[in-house]
Amino acid sequence: MDIASILGLILCGVVFIFGILTSGGVSALGNFLDVPSIFITFGGSLCCVLASYSLQNFKEGLMSFRLVLKTPDNDTSVTIRKIIELSNIARKEGLLALEERAADLDDEFLKKGILLIVDGTDQELVRAIMDTELASIEERHKTKIGFWDALGAMGPAWGMIGTLVGLVNMLNKMSDPSAVGPGMATALITTLYGSLLANWVCTPVASKLRESNAEEARLKGIMIEGLLSIQAGENPRVIEEKLKAFLSPKDRESWDSENGGEPVG
Amino acid sequence: MDIASILGLILCGVVFIFGILTSGGVSALGNFLDVPSIFITFGGSLCCVLASYSLQNFKEGLMSFRLVLKTPDNDTSVTIRKIIELSNIARKEGLLALEERAADLDDEFLKKGILLIVDGTDQELVRAIMDTELASIEERHKTKIGFWDALGAMGPAWGMIGTLVGLVNMLNKMSDPSAVGPGMATALITTLYGSLLANWVCTPVASKLRESNAEEARLKGIMIEGLLSIQAGENPRVIEEKLKAFLSPKDRESWDSENGGEPVG
Amino acid sequence: MDIASILGLILCGVVFIFGILTSGGVSALGNFLDVPSIFITFGGSLCCVLASYSLQNFKEGLMSFRLVLKTPDNDTSVTIRKIIELSNIARKEGLLALEERAADLDDEFLKKGILLIVDGTDQELVRAIMDTELASIEERHKTKIGFWDALGAMGPAWGMIGTLVGLVNMLNKMSDPSAVGPGMATALITTLYGSLLANWVCTPVASKLRESNAEEARLKGIMIEGLLSIQAGENPRVIEEKLKAFLSPKDRESWDSENGGEPVG
Amino acid sequence: MDIASILGLILCGVVFIFGILTSGGVSALGNFLDVPSIFITFGGSLCCVLASYSLQNFKEGLMSFRLVLKTPDNDTSVTIRKIIELSNIARKEGLLALEERAADLDDEFLKKGILLIVDGTDQELVRAIMDTELASIEERHKTKIGFWDALGAMGPAWGMIGTLVGLVNMLNKMSDPSAVGPGMATALITTLYGSLLANWVCTPVASKLRESNAEEARLKGIMIEGLLSIQAGENPRVIEEKLKAFLSPKDRESWDSENGGEPVG
Amino acid sequence: MDIASILGLILCGVVFIFGILTSGGVSALGNFLDVPSIFITFGGSLCCVLASYSLQNFKEGLMSFRLVLKTPDNDTSVTIRKIIELSNIARKEGLLALEERAADLDDEFLKKGILLIVDGTDQELVRAIMDTELASIEERHKTKIGFWDALGAMGPAWGMIGTLVGLVNMLNKMSDPSAVGPGMATALITTLYGSLLANWVCTPVASKLRESNAEEARLKGIMIEGLLSIQAGENPRVIEEKLKAFLSPKDRESWDSENGGEPVG
Repeated sequence: MDIASILGLILCGVVFIFGILTSGGVSALGNFLDVPSIFITFGGSLCCVLASYSLQNFKEGLMSFRLVLKTPDNDTSVTIRKIIELSNIARKEGLLALEERAADLDDEFLKKGILLIVDGTDQELVRAIMDTELASIEERHKTKIGFWDALGAMGPAWGMIGTLVGLVNMLNKMSDPSAVGPGMATALITTLYGSLLANWVCTPVASKLRESNAEEARLKGIMIEGLLSIQAGENPRVIEEKLKAFLSPKDRESWDSENGGEPVG
Repeated sequence: MDIASILGLILCGVVFIFGILTSGGVSALGNFLDVPSIFITFGGSLCCVLASYSLQNFKEGLMSFRLVLKTPDNDTSVTIRKIIELSNIARKEGLLALEERAADLDDEFLKKGILLIVDGTDQELVRAIMDTELASIEERHKTKIGFWDALGAMGPAWGMIGTLVGLVNMLNKMSDPSAVGPGMATALITTLYGSLLANWVCTPVASKLRESNAEEARLKGIMIEGLLSIQAGENPRVIEEKLKAFLSPKDRESWDSENGGEPVG
Repeated sequence: MDIASILGLILCGVVFIFGILTSGGVSALGNFLDVPSIFITFGGSLCCVLASYSLQNFKEGLMSFRLVLKTPDNDTSVTIRKIIELSNIARKEGLLALEERAADLDDEFLKKGILLIVDGTDQELVRAIMDTELASIEERHKTKIGFWDALGAMGPAWGMIGTLVGLVNMLNKMSDPSAVGPGMATALITTLYGSLLANWVCTPVASKLRESNAEEARLKGIMIEGLLSIQAGENPRVIEEKLKAFLSPKDRESWDSENGGEPVG
Repeated sequence: MDIASILGLILCGVVFIFGILTSGGVSALGNFLDVPSIFITFGGSLCCVLASYSLQNFKEGLMSFRLVLKTPDNDTSVTIRKIIELSNIARKEGLLALEERAADLDDEFLKKGILLIVDGTDQELVRAIMDTELASIEERHKTKIGFWDALGAMGPAWGMIGTLVGLVNMLNKMSDPSAVGPGMATALITTLYGSLLANWVCTPVASKLRESNAEEARLKGIMIEGLLSIQAGENPRVIEEKLKAFLSPKDRESWDSENGGEPVG
Repeated sequence: MDIASILGLILCGVVFIFGILTSGGVSALGNFLDVPSIFITFGGSLCCVLASYSLQNFKEGLMSFRLVLKTPDNDTSVTIRKIIELSNIARKEGLLALEERAADLDDEFLKKGILLIVDGTDQELVRAIMDTELASIEERHKTKIGFWDALGAMGPAWGMIGTLVGLVNMLNKMSDPSAVGPGMATALITTLYGSLLANWVCTPVASKLRESNAEEARLKGIMIEGLLSIQAGENPRVIEEKLKAFLSPKDRESWDSENGGEPVG
């Protein structure tokens, strides 16, 4: 994932610079850098988003940009394999034997579920706690996605405000006709910046976070399903059958070829 | 929260003034103040919103601006701690002992729930009453959020109406070419005002109210969950486990370090 | 409510006239009245909406404008008080005693519910009939709201069609430069009319109807809740507790101060 | 219904022609007929919609235009009366007596339901089959509504594409200033056509189909309710009470006056 | 289906070329091919979508274009006939006899369901697994549809960015008036490309995939219904009655005429 997002974001910049060069030549590059316009468009957008959130959520929203660059470790097959392994241990050595195994688990969510089971928590309560946990995770993710959606909506709005300011100023001193063109060019720069903020940065980041969130929620949903099956003492083969339905056809084929013939565990 | 909203709203204004100054100089500032334009854009928008609501809801909508500046006292950890404390009292001294304790509670919602339990109200009825109460609160909040959404939609609409009026007037007296520029500048001012009303004021206020409402609904949801657990006489440890699932990872860490080792209560 | 809507609609007109006067002077007023433009924008919009509905729904949609000016008699406290009173009668004198009392009720919905109870209708059937009735009422309201939404969407669309017609005509006879300005001014008038139709009339009317509908549905929901409680023979105090959850904090305070100390009924 | 839609569609055309005549005179009419523009806007829109659907759905979508002109036979009172009549027959002469009566029914849906009951089909199965049937009908209607929505979205899009093509061509041969006006006029014609396609044709047709579908689904919902009541052997009076809740206040009054005093059937 | 999509996509191109030719003549064709504009609009859009997805989903999204050209084998009648046939075999020769028959089935989904039944899997588990499978399929389809929706939204956005870049460059060298026209023409080309990308390619592809997905989900829903009926040992005639409700009136007529008189199987 890492590569797609970084690559995409960088290539967008390359395409944009290329567009300026082919249409206006190297000397035109300077026309596209206007510090006050940057200040108005980006400053205005960020301040409005700051006013829309609590300081905590604003900071977390900004920071979530890093998540786009991190490759999440979301491999469905690996997760299913782990759950089947755990179900085999539970079946052969009892639920208590899972405690030791839980210490090795990287995933905090799965670990918590296992510990709840080992503690002998009531099945209904395990589901309730894990569902609440998942809902809380998704809610936090949605706040972050909402941050980028809001910033992406503010960008063009403040770009237009900047352009209107520039136009009003230009229209009020139209005595010098030769200044009309460059004046309008400068006025349009904020619209361009707002559009870039929305389409180059915010939309891809929000989409990527949305994709990661959906993926994580799917994986955690599989874990909950698996945990409850383990607690209910279901047969590892049945659990495998159940969880394999979550795999894509391609993953399922490689799964079947890897586990072909011999039973899991 | 307080700081983020006030800071954001003020900084937006700073950015806007800065934009005017860099693009038109100090002398340009006057061009951006046009009383009739203010009257048309803000007056028209407010009157349309007035026509859209009952007088009561209109007033409450306007007043809700203050909520944006007030720091709500929504600390999940504190709430959970309070509920666990109450559950310990209920467990050790009986449900009736909660009555005395309820008098100290700041939160009206939690207090009402405790009193219902102390009165021996049927569990189903407690849930029904508390759910209705929460739904009523959210409905009232949504009316207020809707007010700012409506005003934010009306701003650009009346800005455009003002601009059209200005354009029609300008186009009908185009005999003097030197008046075209300033005439169009004035016509555009209402569009600028409408855009500022929507993006500087209404969107942030509506977003902030939406965030506060979600936060409050979440907290009150935790309270209902806790109240019903207390009434059902559940073990305080189980209640803690249940409610901790609502905490963010960061809050949970600080929670665990504070309560580490020794049982709650 | 009455006052807010009428006041808002009239003030919008005042603001609009004021805008024309300040920007173009009294002589400009005439430029904003163009009968063919009125015909195109309003005629086109209305005809399209006529084509979108059955004649019956079209007529009812148009007529629903009157509802905006009528103050609905939706007082939650009064309704709750009536229900508690009925529950006291039912408790003391039996369900049949309600028949006589029902004749005095203004609200047809509540009256029908009481008569169903008096007839000894099965509890499930009472809920089913009242729910269907409420759903039918809301559906009829939604058709009316949809009418104004549709008209509000058609306004700007036909305004733009009118402007395009005007522009095409103007562009085809550009030989006389002095006619360009007024020609374009006339072309823009339909856009202005469409915008006024949408933002001055349709949006406020649709919003107001939506608010009234939500309010009525809420009240009727309280009635259903109360009727079923009466039929189930619940204690008037419990019914009061249940229904009070629907009151806003302000209404509840005045309720508590009015009924303070002594039991209802 | 027939009249409203045909009348609305024709009047829109009258209004549009009137708009051209008042703004440009009779000689202007010719400027608004441009065969290549028709080809681009309507052809492009239709081809894109063709690419969006299977051939079958495309044809059915186009054909559904006729439904707008047909007056559906959706009279709630008549339907309810029929169901009550059937319930009386079932009550007096047994369910089997309904078979003969079913042959006279115009409505295929009601007929199928009656035959299922006569066949002694299990109550749960009757509901499942009738619900599936209703869902399938609605799904087919929605595909047709979606066709007009898609065409209505494509119209302005291809109108803009046509205008861009015209503008690019015009801008590339600006040596002759007298050609600029007419060139731009022609370029705008496709935008006008796209807007007419969307607002004159597609939106009203889609709205009308949506209204008809809602009406039909409502009627069929009443039939299912009635059929299950007949099968359950409910009292015709109870069925009448149940189904009357679906009537509008006006219909209910005329119903009560017609059936006043004497029991139905 | 094949034909509709290919035909539609090709005809759109024909219409577009025709539009250029009639408005600008053959010599104008060259004005509409601008390699840098292609690079900016298509490159920018694709890079942004690349940044929005994982590499895997990006590739699968692009590849899904082929699905639009493939005629899916979704015949409801054939599927229902197959299920009834299977139910007859199950009824006459027992569930185990289905194993042999399953090998001949083309549809992997139906085959998997049959094998689960033959394995004696618990009815609840069969439903759970098949539902999960269907949900996973739909989720994968939705990711692909989302890809085209995202690309269709990015097209006009990057078209506008390209146009703004062109305008700023043009406005900064307005000394040569004769260059203004062609300069603006070139600037508009990216807007045209963006519009074509969205309306010629992305919208039809996304709509078509959406239609195919709905159709496939419907068919697979019928299969699940049928499989559970077979497992429950329901009478083939009842199954036929149940599944026929999914057929359109036209399909049902041809079904009835084919199976008229004699029982299925």
